[in-house]
Amino acid sequence: MSQSLRSAGLQKLALAFADKFSLNDSVRDQHSHGESYPHGPIVEGVLFAQSTQMVSQAVQICAEYGIPVIPFGVGSSLEGHLVPVHGGISIDMTEMHQVRAINAEDFDCVVEAGVTREQLNHELRHQGLFFPIDPGANASIGGMSATRASGTNAVRYGTMKDVVMGLTVVTAAGEVMHTGGRAKKSAAGYDLTRLLIGSEGTLGIITEIRLRLFPIPEQISAAVCAYPNVEVAAQVVIECMQMGIPLARVELLDKAQMGACINYSNLQDFEVAPTLFFEFHGTESGVQEQIELVQDISKANNGGEFRWAQTQEQRNELWAARHNAYFAGRAMRPGWDVLTTDVCVPISCLADAIGESERRAKELNLLTAIVGHVGDGNFHILVLFDGADSAAEKLAYDYASSIVQMAIAMGGTCTGEHGIGLRKKKYLATELGDEAVNAMVTIKRAMDPLNILNPGKIFDVV
Amino acid sequence: MSQSLRSAGLQKLALAFADKFSLNDSVRDQHSHGESYPHGPIVEGVLFAQSTQMVSQAVQICAEYGIPVIPFGVGSSLEGHLVPVHGGISIDMTEMHQVRAINAEDFDCVVEAGVTREQLNHELRHQGLFFPIDPGANASIGGMSATRASGTNAVRYGTMKDVVMGLTVVTAAGEVMHTGGRAKKSAAGYDLTRLLIGSEGTLGIITEIRLRLFPIPEQISAAVCAYPNVEVAAQVVIECMQMGIPLARVELLDKAQMGACINYSNLQDFEVAPTLFFEFHGTESGVQEQIELVQDISKANNGGEFRWAQTQEQRNELWAARHNAYFAGRAMRPGWDVLTTDVCVPISCLADAIGESERRAKELNLLTAIVGHVGDGNFHILVLFDGADSAAEKLAYDYASSIVQMAIAMGGTCTGEHGIGLRKKKYLATELGDEAVNAMVTIKRAMDPLNILNPGKIFDVV
Repeated sequence: MSQSLRSAGLQKLALAFADKFSLNDSVRDQHSHGESYPHGPIVEGVLFAQSTQMVSQAVQICAEYGIPVIPFGVGSSLEGHLVPVHGGISIDMTEMHQVRAINAEDFDCVVEAGVTREQLNHELRHQGLFFPIDPGANASIGGMSATRASGTNAVRYGTMKDVVMGLTVVTAAGEVMHTGGRAKKSAAGYDLTRLLIGSEGTLGIITEIRLRLFPIPEQISAAVCAYPNVEVAAQVVIECMQMGIPLARVELLDKAQMGACINYSNLQDFEVAPTLFFEFHGTESGVQEQIELVQDISKANNGGEFRWAQTQEQRNELWAARHNAYFAGRAMRPGWDVLTTDVCVPISCLADAIGESERRAKELNLLTAIVGHVGDGNFHILVLFDGADSAAEKLAYDYASSIVQMAIAMGGTCTGEHGIGLRKKKYLATELGDEAVNAMVTIKRAMDPLNILNPGKIFDVV
Repeated sequence: MSQSLRSAGLQKLALAFADKFSLNDSVRDQHSHGESYPHGPIVEGVLFAQSTQMVSQAVQICAEYGIPVIPFGVGSSLEGHLVPVHGGISIDMTEMHQVRAINAEDFDCVVEAGVTREQLNHELRHQGLFFPIDPGANASIGGMSATRASGTNAVRYGTMKDVVMGLTVVTAAGEVMHTGGRAKKSAAGYDLTRLLIGSEGTLGIITEIRLRLFPIPEQISAAVCAYPNVEVAAQVVIECMQMGIPLARVELLDKAQMGACINYSNLQDFEVAPTLFFEFHGTESGVQEQIELVQDISKANNGGEFRWAQTQEQRNELWAARHNAYFAGRAMRPGWDVLTTDVCVPISCLADAIGESERRAKELNLLTAIVGHVGDGNFHILVLFDGADSAAEKLAYDYASSIVQMAIAMGGTCTGEHGIGLRKKKYLATELGDEAVNAMVTIKRAMDPLNILNPGKIFDVV
């Protein structure tokens, strides 16, 4: 790729899109990173897309001039997905923020990729419907699709792979492709929808998404409960899942994370102790039944008293505290760098995995906080370290790596929901084997022969 | 492909696999078709596979000699998946019938591809677990994975795409690839598992499957209820789904199908009328709550009395009658040919779609029977016709085609669960657009460059 050819391409983009194509330094910088990843190279320009057609036209130009393209939602990625390791432009989807259709009678809707989950739920609020996937951040639906996001409600409602019914996608050649449809199920050909979900922008640019929606439950109750240690808290979750109790959310915060959240959100009357956050959805009697079962299991495991949030306001306060866990964790030591890991293990291994993670951190004298979507066996560790101290940095990274290796050894995965991005490429073959990674590369080469769609993410095409 | 090269390949297979490779005429004939598809060409040999390694070795030989390979489960396919339109061999998986692992505490298991769903449930019966996907036939888990099967329980438990956690697959080069894992969710790279599910043997040969299992519900109740016409019955289903009632099964049989089942299974005390079969899973009070809601909706729509099957024996009898629907339908006119269609529409269109299907059949004076997994908007029509009368045959095929076109026009799919196979290739681009079909062909070419894996199915690679 000659530099002059690339410059000509950028000029063509500027000509085609006028003020919707920005070369401004701070705009470019802002579009070159997400959260929790060291800053790296900067994109060469930012297109503010307003339609699928505009994305299609831009990708055609980029294909002509060999310019990489990286789609951008709200920038909440944690694994370096937005870093232009091979240069190229960012396509910002935030101006594609229309909810295009809501079919209440069929529980589906169509949104543009830049619609965020909070915006969607706001627009749904009078229809008795909601969109359950909640990764914490107010992420865009496009970004959530591209990274196979999940989060707190996944234990009951599944992940993006379960709620996306179809996509509109701009291919590497700039063609507009539709996948899936409005039927609840289909056996019509390859499942392109699910191939694209979690492909991290490497196979196509998602511009519209058809989503399944769910009726707002008749009854919602939330509660928190403290435990003597994380293993016991995890054991409660294991027993709840093995009983088949349909918990809507069950989140574990370890002592450090709970302390951080109490400080950060100025919470009253919470204990600095390993804590489970529960949410129950169902009919009035169904919720009551779930609550009784969970309280029995909790008591038998030395759990404390349940603190209840019955009103929407109380629940919002409770979940706001949980959602701020990442920023609360960072605030434990202002100025220090933070590294997050995200692993998922079979539920029977959860107590061991979390207990072992705490033990190793203690041994290494690391400042960590654990928070997990534990009903799925999924948990995150925040590791704080002094970025100016290279030995401390290495220790943090080695620790995170050892946790990933432990999860894989337990039959789990190196990433439950954050994706591979840049940092986890090295674990992919360990987890899945060379044959699976080779198959991914084969598909990538076939669908993106010029390697212009978010190149360098998930694996290297050599 | 020269005939002599192919002969040399068959000789090499015979040498490598001795009595496990059959050239017997009746064995070959039996492996060259499923149900409900005109007989066509015959496979050139049948390998009775006993291990993944054996499949791998066979595919390596077939790749060397350019011989197509068609995997065979129990032969219950309805769309011509087993017909060797480009010649080649069949790989019979029935001797790969080991349940290799059951992890009761994690609700998963690993089975070889030839294990049938009934065998698996028999082996699970003392663990308090069950495998819910039930397409009617006692199909193999490998075949069900390859065709993205679903059936009666899908309304509550999903389809094969939702319950398969990972696969062992032999690739077109004869390599052994593993996908997925034991974690409940993962964001690690492309979703190869779901790309292979529903790929109908065209991207790899599935030899082992890791499945999610479910706890046997505390309470199971089943009931049937007759309705004045199919539209009303469909309306009851629509209202149940829109209320969010978590029905485990809800099946609609039209008057003709109900009459056929009563005759075929010698049922006592059933009415020859459009009928819904319900099954409720949950806790005792949860099931009671569901039943009350459904009965209210049913009564408001002029439904008859609910007839209950409470014991396992009564339920088995009830569902045996439903499972025999295909053969009962055929028996309406012994000696006539039968054609099945399988469409799925958005739930709001269900009553219109079924009503219109009945009206068109009546107008054309066709002998049809309708049976549907209506909670998903999915239904099948059996069309019987005199195979010796070419005008009657054309009428039947034209009618089936018009139903598929109607479903697609409603935003539905040309196949809810039977797959594309041979007969529905012509609808794929109508439903999904050329771009999606082109993407499928691109993936097929990349993963199977010699086009030896079940060639000619889903689409033509030209």
